[in-house]
Amino acid sequence: MTKRLGMMDAVFLAGETRESMMQVGALMPFTPAPDAGPMFLRDLADELRAMRAVESPWNLRLRTPEFVKNPLQAWVADDEFDMDYHVRRSALPSPGDERELGVLVSRLHGIPLDFHRPLWELHIIEGLARGRFALYVKVHHALVDGYTSMKILAASLTTDPAKRDMDLFFALPAPVRTRADADPPTLASLLELARAQAGAARDVGRALANVYRAVRAKDKELVAPMQAPRSILNHRISRNRRFATQQVAMARIKAIAKAAGGTLNDVCLALCGAAIRRLLEDLGELPPRPLIAMLPVNVRPKDDPGGGNAVGAILASLATDVVDPAERLRAIIASTQRAKDQLQGMSKNAILQYSALLMTPLTLQQLTGTAGRTRPAFNVVISNVPGPDRPLYFRGARLEALYPMSIPFHGYGLNITITSYVETLNFGFTGCRDTVPHLQRLAVYAADALDDLERALT
Amino acid sequence: MTKRLGMMDAVFLAGETRESMMQVGALMPFTPAPDAGPMFLRDLADELRAMRAVESPWNLRLRTPEFVKNPLQAWVADDEFDMDYHVRRSALPSPGDERELGVLVSRLHGIPLDFHRPLWELHIIEGLARGRFALYVKVHHALVDGYTSMKILAASLTTDPAKRDMDLFFALPAPVRTRADADPPTLASLLELARAQAGAARDVGRALANVYRAVRAKDKELVAPMQAPRSILNHRISRNRRFATQQVAMARIKAIAKAAGGTLNDVCLALCGAAIRRLLEDLGELPPRPLIAMLPVNVRPKDDPGGGNAVGAILASLATDVVDPAERLRAIIASTQRAKDQLQGMSKNAILQYSALLMTPLTLQQLTGTAGRTRPAFNVVISNVPGPDRPLYFRGARLEALYPMSIPFHGYGLNITITSYVETLNFGFTGCRDTVPHLQRLAVYAADALDDLERALT
Repeated sequence: MTKRLGMMDAVFLAGETRESMMQVGALMPFTPAPDAGPMFLRDLADELRAMRAVESPWNLRLRTPEFVKNPLQAWVADDEFDMDYHVRRSALPSPGDERELGVLVSRLHGIPLDFHRPLWELHIIEGLARGRFALYVKVHHALVDGYTSMKILAASLTTDPAKRDMDLFFALPAPVRTRADADPPTLASLLELARAQAGAARDVGRALANVYRAVRAKDKELVAPMQAPRSILNHRISRNRRFATQQVAMARIKAIAKAAGGTLNDVCLALCGAAIRRLLEDLGELPPRPLIAMLPVNVRPKDDPGGGNAVGAILASLATDVVDPAERLRAIIASTQRAKDQLQGMSKNAILQYSALLMTPLTLQQLTGTAGRTRPAFNVVISNVPGPDRPLYFRGARLEALYPMSIPFHGYGLNITITSYVETLNFGFTGCRDTVPHLQRLAVYAADALDDLERALT
Repeated sequence: MTKRLGMMDAVFLAGETRESMMQVGALMPFTPAPDAGPMFLRDLADELRAMRAVESPWNLRLRTPEFVKNPLQAWVADDEFDMDYHVRRSALPSPGDERELGVLVSRLHGIPLDFHRPLWELHIIEGLARGRFALYVKVHHALVDGYTSMKILAASLTTDPAKRDMDLFFALPAPVRTRADADPPTLASLLELARAQAGAARDVGRALANVYRAVRAKDKELVAPMQAPRSILNHRISRNRRFATQQVAMARIKAIAKAAGGTLNDVCLALCGAAIRRLLEDLGELPPRPLIAMLPVNVRPKDDPGGGNAVGAILASLATDVVDPAERLRAIIASTQRAKDQLQGMSKNAILQYSALLMTPLTLQQLTGTAGRTRPAFNVVISNVPGPDRPLYFRGARLEALYPMSIPFHGYGLNITITSYVETLNFGFTGCRDTVPHLQRLAVYAADALDDLERALT
């Protein structure tokens, strides 16, 4: 059985280097069921490893792993599939707090996948404080994109705490995309757009060259409306990762959004902006001009009579030049509003072109080796993707949080992805350990920023 | 400060690939002092990380890490030395037995070092059964060879359990080699010989080409006396490692050696041979002809009037074609004796030439990409190097064992290194996880083989 490589698969394989691993992940801490015994995790690992077969795509490996960029590259079934390799146990050193969990997951996310095998790993992590545990899943973006991964993971869980026979994702058939979720505003869907925009060419090089020509032609309609400053977020990255998390109550975000007249996402941006501003100040690296975030969003094009949505990319100021928290939030709201207005004034085709252009540095610069050596098109990607809205369980253990882990690229050393889960927003800060020092402070500073905004606005 | 790269440094850097990492290591389990509190390891990690400076060579990084094989490559002081990166905490999942320790250390040994930093890591591993802990040190062979690493580690420890202010190796000046230990019979010293034999040329390519010419000329004096069969130990390796350990009482080995009229090392070879034979039988992969081990040894050349020693390499049969354990040991004793007799009949220069020839596949084949694709010169490297002869302590914690971890190469997927420690012999089996499946059984089978020999001979 051989499966042709998709265009995006090829893009993500082409981008893989020793420093830039194109792998996404999810970190899921759980509270065990009250009746879970001390053997729960060991039995789980043994059971999973005893499985002999997994569903597609979890059984697929590259046909020519030694020559990843082979134009005849394809997915083939791994005849020597070895579950013991993919399902792994780990433990935290004491005291097993968020810090130790962050360190372990940072290390794991910095290790490349083995290209001779199906490109995923599941880690069962024990030793979290108060008897808790976590699952960490690592998947190559060529196999499954991040948003689909999150959906697949959620499908492995259940809303029923009494249901104890749930299988994990690799034992489940891959979900079929419905019309409703065909275009979530994710980095992956934007990259997909960039590809579509460049023509339905099956040749990656040609497709990207088309985008590149558009950049060089400096098409007035398409030029980015703002210029991002250079910053330490925009260097070439190392192979090492740092991952930090923060979970905040959605009600708190909502109250602030309402008070300021903005959206939930605006407040999330304000937390990110405040955290980045403070970290860069700590390091003496805050640029005088505001940092620019690139956000995947859903927009309503002017030429769509059905009132349908399109995925677009907007650039928004993080107002990191503004000292006052409330004023900074208002500047962000104004910036995202302007950017969305601009997109909504465009035809669907123009939105596609514009978004494709914004994505260019994340693909083309990687391939040409100019990323991190030239002026950045923006400073940081901040994605906000919807997650499960009901509490989920795995064999009686309650999912506490769902933290997305994304991909830092050369020139774009920090990615912030936010997922909703029941009444919380879950922030995942994934970055390069070496070009973005003390990245874990972003999580603490984001929480502090929420306090500041509450004091100022509610 | 810039330090020229040694010849061997260059050889080991040149050999580094995604699959063949030229790193050695040591695994050291400890029993904590009776008065050690629950914060002992956390305090230790904090203290080590708070250190601002380390001694040479532990502060040295490559000058051009992006271009490792740069002929102008050199060691330079790492101005951004980051102790937090080098000193790491880890923990074992329950029950924290030898199995979990082996899995963790296997994984860690399969992760390449970061060539942008000093090429070493120290892992403090907690969660071993009965409150024990372990240290795992990983060092690139270009920085320090395995034997020197062991010596440096031992120098970090003390014979005095009451001494609590010991520094670890990176805080100590590098030891100066004395005349007495100038030529231990190790893989590294053999490689060094191969280089010296090929002339004092500073150019690695030319040096190796000289050795290669000797092979092609099929110099009668230098041709290997035995032909090794092809086996699964001699394939191209993957990037994944498996490490297994076994500690046996030296008194048991001595009794068998005495009964059979062989050396301690002969009995060690018999344990290795028996274990390999049984594993290959399990897998249906036992070649009909006996497997051949390459052993670094000290020999007395016929032309040395002072009766001095030289390091040489011998090939010995592991007699894996012999069913009976006692008979197998006798065959091994005869084989090593023949090989040593042959070396002792040679001039010092001939020993050098002969040994250099035997080392060729481990260096030249790596560089030419033919390793693992051609007939092996031998099947497995088995080194036996002397270790500390008195019990050692680190801040009151007693060193239980000292397991050496070595380098599998393409074509040579298993390395067995044995070190003595007080009244024990410590076996470290380092191999490729994928071409040598179930490698960890070797440790169990070696212990069973000892029982078998005792039953047969004592």
